Amino acid sequence: MAKLAYLGPEGTFTEEALRLMEPDAERLPCPTVAAALNAARSGEADGAVVPLENSLEGAITTTLDEFAWGDPLLITAEVLLPVRFSLLARPGTELVHIKRVYSHPAAITQCRGFLSRELPDAVVVAAPSTAAAAQEVSLPGSPYDAAIAAPIAGEHYGLVEVAANIGDRPDTMTRFVRVGRPGTLPEPTGADRTTLVVFLADDHPGALLEMLTEFSVRGVNLTRIESRPTGDGIGRYFFHFDLEGHVADARVGEAISGLHRICSEVRFFGSYPRADRVSPQIKRGMDDSDFTEAAAWLSRIRAGDV
Amino acid sequence: MAKLAYLGPEGTFTEEALRLMEPDAERLPCPTVAAALNAARSGEADGAVVPLENSLEGAITTTLDEFAWGDPLLITAEVLLPVRFSLLARPGTELVHIKRVYSHPAAITQCRGFLSRELPDAVVVAAPSTAAAAQEVSLPGSPYDAAIAAPIAGEHYGLVEVAANIGDRPDTMTRFVRVGRPGTLPEPTGADRTTLVVFLADDHPGALLEMLTEFSVRGVNLTRIESRPTGDGIGRYFFHFDLEGHVADARVGEAISGLHRICSEVRFFGSYPRADRVSPQIKRGMDDSDFTEAAAWLSRIRAGDV
Amino acid sequence: MAKLAYLGPEGTFTEEALRLMEPDAERLPCPTVAAALNAARSGEADGAVVPLENSLEGAITTTLDEFAWGDPLLITAEVLLPVRFSLLARPGTELVHIKRVYSHPAAITQCRGFLSRELPDAVVVAAPSTAAAAQEVSLPGSPYDAAIAAPIAGEHYGLVEVAANIGDRPDTMTRFVRVGRPGTLPEPTGADRTTLVVFLADDHPGALLEMLTEFSVRGVNLTRIESRPTGDGIGRYFFHFDLEGHVADARVGEAISGLHRICSEVRFFGSYPRADRVSPQIKRGMDDSDFTEAAAWLSRIRAGDV
Amino acid sequence: MAKLAYLGPEGTFTEEALRLMEPDAERLPCPTVAAALNAARSGEADGAVVPLENSLEGAITTTLDEFAWGDPLLITAEVLLPVRFSLLARPGTELVHIKRVYSHPAAITQCRGFLSRELPDAVVVAAPSTAAAAQEVSLPGSPYDAAIAAPIAGEHYGLVEVAANIGDRPDTMTRFVRVGRPGTLPEPTGADRTTLVVFLADDHPGALLEMLTEFSVRGVNLTRIESRPTGDGIGRYFFHFDLEGHVADARVGEAISGLHRICSEVRFFGSYPRADRVSPQIKRGMDDSDFTEAAAWLSRIRAGDV
Repeated sequence: MAKLAYLGPEGTFTEEALRLMEPDAERLPCPTVAAALNAARSGEADGAVVPLENSLEGAITTTLDEFAWGDPLLITAEVLLPVRFSLLARPGTELVHIKRVYSHPAAITQCRGFLSRELPDAVVVAAPSTAAAAQEVSLPGSPYDAAIAAPIAGEHYGLVEVAANIGDRPDTMTRFVRVGRPGTLPEPTGADRTTLVVFLADDHPGALLEMLTEFSVRGVNLTRIESRPTGDGIGRYFFHFDLEGHVADARVGEAISGLHRICSEVRFFGSYPRADRVSPQIKRGMDDSDFTEAAAWLSRIRAGDV
Repeated sequence: MAKLAYLGPEGTFTEEALRLMEPDAERLPCPTVAAALNAARSGEADGAVVPLENSLEGAITTTLDEFAWGDPLLITAEVLLPVRFSLLARPGTELVHIKRVYSHPAAITQCRGFLSRELPDAVVVAAPSTAAAAQEVSLPGSPYDAAIAAPIAGEHYGLVEVAANIGDRPDTMTRFVRVGRPGTLPEPTGADRTTLVVFLADDHPGALLEMLTEFSVRGVNLTRIESRPTGDGIGRYFFHFDLEGHVADARVGEAISGLHRICSEVRFFGSYPRADRVSPQIKRGMDDSDFTEAAAWLSRIRAGDV
Repeated sequence: MAKLAYLGPEGTFTEEALRLMEPDAERLPCPTVAAALNAARSGEADGAVVPLENSLEGAITTTLDEFAWGDPLLITAEVLLPVRFSLLARPGTELVHIKRVYSHPAAITQCRGFLSRELPDAVVVAAPSTAAAAQEVSLPGSPYDAAIAAPIAGEHYGLVEVAANIGDRPDTMTRFVRVGRPGTLPEPTGADRTTLVVFLADDHPGALLEMLTEFSVRGVNLTRIESRPTGDGIGRYFFHFDLEGHVADARVGEAISGLHRICSEVRFFGSYPRADRVSPQIKRGMDDSDFTEAAAWLSRIRAGDV
Repeated sequence: MAKLAYLGPEGTFTEEALRLMEPDAERLPCPTVAAALNAARSGEADGAVVPLENSLEGAITTTLDEFAWGDPLLITAEVLLPVRFSLLARPGTELVHIKRVYSHPAAITQCRGFLSRELPDAVVVAAPSTAAAAQEVSLPGSPYDAAIAAPIAGEHYGLVEVAANIGDRPDTMTRFVRVGRPGTLPEPTGADRTTLVVFLADDHPGALLEMLTEFSVRGVNLTRIESRPTGDGIGRYFFHFDLEGHVADARVGEAISGLHRICSEVRFFGSYPRADRVSPQIKRGMDDSDFTEAAAWLSRIRAGDV
């Protein structure tokens, strides 16, 4: 039975994602994304589940940076989780009693409509995480009357759901990934995603255009691009890419080999099945069979057999 | 005398930036970036000063999103501020007494080295902002012994500097901008920056490459690119760009007109002098005089005068 | 009544094209394309009709070069003429009598199938033009029994058609253009063509890619591209372009202004209705109304009205 | 001893090129470029020497087309020959006696300055080739007084040089190639050229840009590009390319494999040492060692060893 680290405490959306991906895994809650990844790196856990991007908030930059800078890890699976916020309180609390609300700023932002409509006079205070807010609210002497958190947090901390689905956009999704130490990649399924981090060789104008051309010329589509600061000063970036396809695909392999040749460093973070099972539209000439045939043709003409 | 809103409470890095840009302005601290921008939008203040990006943490996504979604504002100036963290405590506190440290997670991250070296056993707790942490620590019954915050916060809240410059990277910088309601743009200085938000017409493969080509074909360099989720689902983005030059420059005007034609929306957030005073290297044929001469030539040939 | 110079002698395909374009014009046959163009340049004629490209033989390089190097001329019309070759002989000649055939090498090449099938033993001799071949054959003491030429040449020189339509590819077409001294351009019709000659600023790798990008970024399609030597050594070229659209179209005007800025010289040879009346597919954002709207938008944002 | 076919008759510039490349070869003059290439194809000769491009006249389109459409041949060597024209006449002829000049139109064009200066009243008549002109002039009853041809033609046909170096541009060069039946390619020398013919898969706008991008993304420079009509109608082209490097070079191999995948047909006409011995400037990441290293890296990451 696998042991998986995750961003805790118990009751986070990440725990919900972990349970969806591997219901039987032993769970190791960690205080930060970094701690969860390091548990996977050190062998304390067999892997980790962490959030990577959110359809409202964007990339989870902590995760991106921890991937980029720490020891290598490989993503082996992903899951898309609808983000459902509940207003959680100690048993017996009613909406009219709630004067002080505690939650993570992102959750507060995403529930702005509900708060101004239903609790216009409440004081809203920022917490380190939604689960931590629930945990705090569950303590008998807590100064807070309610937390905004995942329903699962209510179960963990013995809170009741005063209101459910209070997010302004009910279709909000978060993408979580399961990572592990380097090893065998998942087999290609025809509907895969590949994640990379790329450092530019030099930051000349047009460098980003050159990188994107390495993808487009082999018909590889990007599904996500993030620039992140290298830390060496304003205007110095590295890039996170998600792209359609598996590194075992010929077009993907040639594209990222091309990147590897022109960039100072390309870090590979895995090829894994897409949660949405969407297969890429492969352009003319970009299928594996096209590459195989072209390689055979090249061998022939190099031998003078035209 | 201008009245400028900013991300408060008193003692934030943003206040420091505001004072650097407009020492004589009346200052209106606001609880959030959104509140500061809205004070500028409503006329409650004449403008606002907000952080836009940090050389370690990257884009301040709250600011980016508030720009993209709210009523239009124009950036009229920027400043680069070195980020210097101090360990602040109530008078009489010494390093050995500090058991509980309170600060914003970004500050905690950036002072990791100092904390593990000097305060390996301290409990470190996340606060909503560095200034709020200092304010909390200044209260007599506070459960926290010290805050990590800007030196200015110490002055505001009557704390002493137990340790100074405790950031791991002493060269960390944050870029702040001053924004105001739409109106006259600052004059071009030859070393300007322009900020845009761009929404794609449709999210086809190659759309980003097309956008970048609109810039590169007119010799316009980007200094920052951020993808941000539109909120319509994982994989749907809009883009933030900073580029070299002023919208009054012919090459910049033609490039962003080109973007405007192929994208569903381009929002212009101002052209303003760069804080670093770096002038762009203008490629052959891309100077204003080249555009003027080419326009005259085009008029001639359209009249059949070849 | 216009007087038009053309590549003679009487009976050439060019004469046929001229009659098709301007049946009532006075005709001035000239010994070479250069002579015809110079008659138009000098005012000896009001214009000239010359061949520009052939669907089998390609560009008529003499015409291209005369355009590029001489005084400016503007193309005002084009016509596509099917190339129909006849075997022409003095009255009374039958196929079995024909031992020596005279024609222009291009015509010989294009009738190779007929010659090897019907006249396998004939000696075939190269002539300066098809009409000159017909003229020669018409002389009483000519050593040649037949000419391959346009049917019109038979009429001129009193020859009979021993065989008609003897070309191997009956769909062969030649494109002829009518040129005149610089002056008012034909009005845009929605199905126009524009002809340019472009000299590179410097012959760096990627210069051709840059030129093509000036077109593609404004959605302008090329219908013909020819590289021609500048005469300054092997590997030094200038380029001939035909493109879809009229210089009065905004997208075309901006594209060739862009070329003008990055190239050492762009020579404009006219915008004129296409003979095939094919209208271009205009990409999203590339219509005149899109450019007008974008220019108005740019004016607004430059005035700070966002 | 090799037997080489060439464009005759004896005395052509092609013969001069052949003698320069292979002084000891047996020579087989042929009436046309097609005949020379076919002699090589059929085995009647071991190879052929034909002209490919001229620094004043451009591509020798007959040669390009014969390459494109006939059975495959490989270029194994090239030579650059200065084009020196002489005015050749029967012994005893002086300049003042010359009333009728005979030569190939290209030679007439290239000697225009001399003719108008020294022989303003002479009648100038077009001949099928310069050597054929010399041959004709050598016949006792010839109606022509002089030929413009290569000096070598004078030797062959017993003519004297009335004037030497009469070309308007003394630096004119012609590039000749030696071709043979498919077989082993010449070894890479570091200063090689590769010749291709490419047929588009479909003639969509941007197809040429896509082809050029296949080269540029691998840092392969073109030294010549020609569009030639496919014969299927005005506006339908195929392309001739000369590029820097040898097909054995990794960057060249990957680029033309890429072309092969996206085009309907790529025909390879050989990789051979450049006559001018110019080595390409290889861009960062485009050397063979870069490709080898990138392939090893790709193998590692495909095995999950990151």
